[in-house]
Amino acid sequence: MPEMTRIVLAARPEGAPGAESFRIERAPLPEPGPGMVLLRTIWLSLDPYMRGRMDAAKSYAAPVEVGATMEGGGVAEVLASQAPGFAPGDVVVGPTGWASHAVVPAEALRRIDPAAAPLSTALGVLGMPGLTAWVGLDHIAGAKAGETVVVSAATGAVGSLATQLARRRGLRVIGVAGGAEKCAYAVETLGCDACLDHRAPGGAAALSEAIGAAAPDGVDIYFENVGGRTLEAVLPRMNLHGRIALCGMIAWFSGKGAAEPMTLPAVWRTILTRRLRVQGFLVFDHFDRMPEFLAEVAPLVRSGEIVWRESVSEGLEAAPGAFLRLLEGGNFGKQLVRVGHDPAGT
Amino acid sequence: MPEMTRIVLAARPEGAPGAESFRIERAPLPEPGPGMVLLRTIWLSLDPYMRGRMDAAKSYAAPVEVGATMEGGGVAEVLASQAPGFAPGDVVVGPTGWASHAVVPAEALRRIDPAAAPLSTALGVLGMPGLTAWVGLDHIAGAKAGETVVVSAATGAVGSLATQLARRRGLRVIGVAGGAEKCAYAVETLGCDACLDHRAPGGAAALSEAIGAAAPDGVDIYFENVGGRTLEAVLPRMNLHGRIALCGMIAWFSGKGAAEPMTLPAVWRTILTRRLRVQGFLVFDHFDRMPEFLAEVAPLVRSGEIVWRESVSEGLEAAPGAFLRLLEGGNFGKQLVRVGHDPAGT
Repeated sequence: MPEMTRIVLAARPEGAPGAESFRIERAPLPEPGPGMVLLRTIWLSLDPYMRGRMDAAKSYAAPVEVGATMEGGGVAEVLASQAPGFAPGDVVVGPTGWASHAVVPAEALRRIDPAAAPLSTALGVLGMPGLTAWVGLDHIAGAKAGETVVVSAATGAVGSLATQLARRRGLRVIGVAGGAEKCAYAVETLGCDACLDHRAPGGAAALSEAIGAAAPDGVDIYFENVGGRTLEAVLPRMNLHGRIALCGMIAWFSGKGAAEPMTLPAVWRTILTRRLRVQGFLVFDHFDRMPEFLAEVAPLVRSGEIVWRESVSEGLEAAPGAFLRLLEGGNFGKQLVRVGHDPAGT
Repeated sequence: MPEMTRIVLAARPEGAPGAESFRIERAPLPEPGPGMVLLRTIWLSLDPYMRGRMDAAKSYAAPVEVGATMEGGGVAEVLASQAPGFAPGDVVVGPTGWASHAVVPAEALRRIDPAAAPLSTALGVLGMPGLTAWVGLDHIAGAKAGETVVVSAATGAVGSLATQLARRRGLRVIGVAGGAEKCAYAVETLGCDACLDHRAPGGAAALSEAIGAAAPDGVDIYFENVGGRTLEAVLPRMNLHGRIALCGMIAWFSGKGAAEPMTLPAVWRTILTRRLRVQGFLVFDHFDRMPEFLAEVAPLVRSGEIVWRESVSEGLEAAPGAFLRLLEGGNFGKQLVRVGHDPAGT
């Protein structure tokens, strides 16, 4: 009997998750019912939002139940289909979960063209992270040429496209990243005007000074992925009528930062006195813009004008460790797990 | 030699201000230079923003220097003018400060029609507080018929117009105010669908429960004047894509609320997961809309369809005490000081 492998949530973490939070299981390969498609996972995407799903508290989506397969998006090959429009051999992107195989409703799948770009880009620069960067910069922050933007997690899956798009739109781009290697990449490869290391000595105060020096006209837009020290450093640099496009808070996902010196009243006062607009957004609300996004960015990816970087872990069993490293900022570029053979050969 | 009276900032407060923060002085009556107008103050407006000017930290405006006249807006009669367009006997609204007389640049003055409405309304329902309510509801929050709005400080100068306008726009309106008398007024006179007492037992948790009961479909807009407990109570009730129009934080103006249980990460998480838009705004940026605002609201004030309420203290010397009560929520309606004779007889 054919089997599949999956990784389930073994226990809800208290504070930072660890290896004990996950468990590998084997199970019989399921068969697709009407309207469903059986998938073989090729690439699994690991993303910070998954940390939220591990908690019992309702976030924007229901939590993963203890004992259930960890949720996640992947690129997969169709093995069997009970739905019109999908046939064996098709390559799709969809909610595979952390699993070698999955049965998924057809309406949750999007077919991708294996010839257009490497398959894995459908999870990164041409997928949800890329769309997040594009929507956030243009539609949430309303970026305009001549403005200054600070992009946190500048070399991450979202940040690395946000920086490159901002530069193409004519903004001054200041990245924030963890460590000298990432900062060098942000400037030399992504084209940031400056990139600051949030791990440098001196804490938020020193980081804020450095941002001030790199942004002599102040900061009009903060592309906010992280919260924590970086938020604390950027906020005093925000210009009147600045915008904060808030799509993540990885520094706080594991309950860190409870002792942050910046208090809510101080933040509220800055929003008021600088007349800031803070806009939370999630890519799930903006899937209707995917064609428009791909029309602009896919050609730039193919031509090499937009670059991307991946951090690949081999085999589904590597997913928990890779995810824990991701939460610590240990990845460099879009974090992927190669779960199965890639027929496009990337 | 003719004299004037003024109230100066005697010392910067540490924590809550007190009587010792102010000092009454007499000085020779100044003469207007070119482009300037000499005013006799009739009505002085007291507003929460003045608390911020007492601190050394730069807010959206420079602080009042120690020994300088407290800043403030008033309705005044022109005594002498060295500027075209203003003549003795004209009635104007402008930055008189806490003073019986003032010399003010002509460009800072707006002439008002004494026949249009009682003079004092130019400082309240037809002045900056009114414009704040109107701009905040329509242009910052984007209120739409059928939505639910929570208005903090619902019987205050801003809140009492925000509630009435919201009702006219077809929203469900939930006020929050301090004490049973104000809450009764909010429902019976302002037309709120419900009004909740933030001083009721049970703290933020009980207030949040009560808001939930009064807003069965959740809260689309929070008109935020106060911060503190009310913010903490409203935030969990916000609907997806809700908006917070942030124009004040009186609960935190005196350094209170430092021990608020709601932390910045929790607020940031709610903004993200509910995709909220938090927009700080100040009326000073929106003076260009004053004619449009007056065109709608002044006729409603004259006809009695929009009501307002004033809390009047008699004589300039009463200003410090009235201001300290205002910070504690002890006023009921727009706080004014009658500084001099009102020729319109109100």
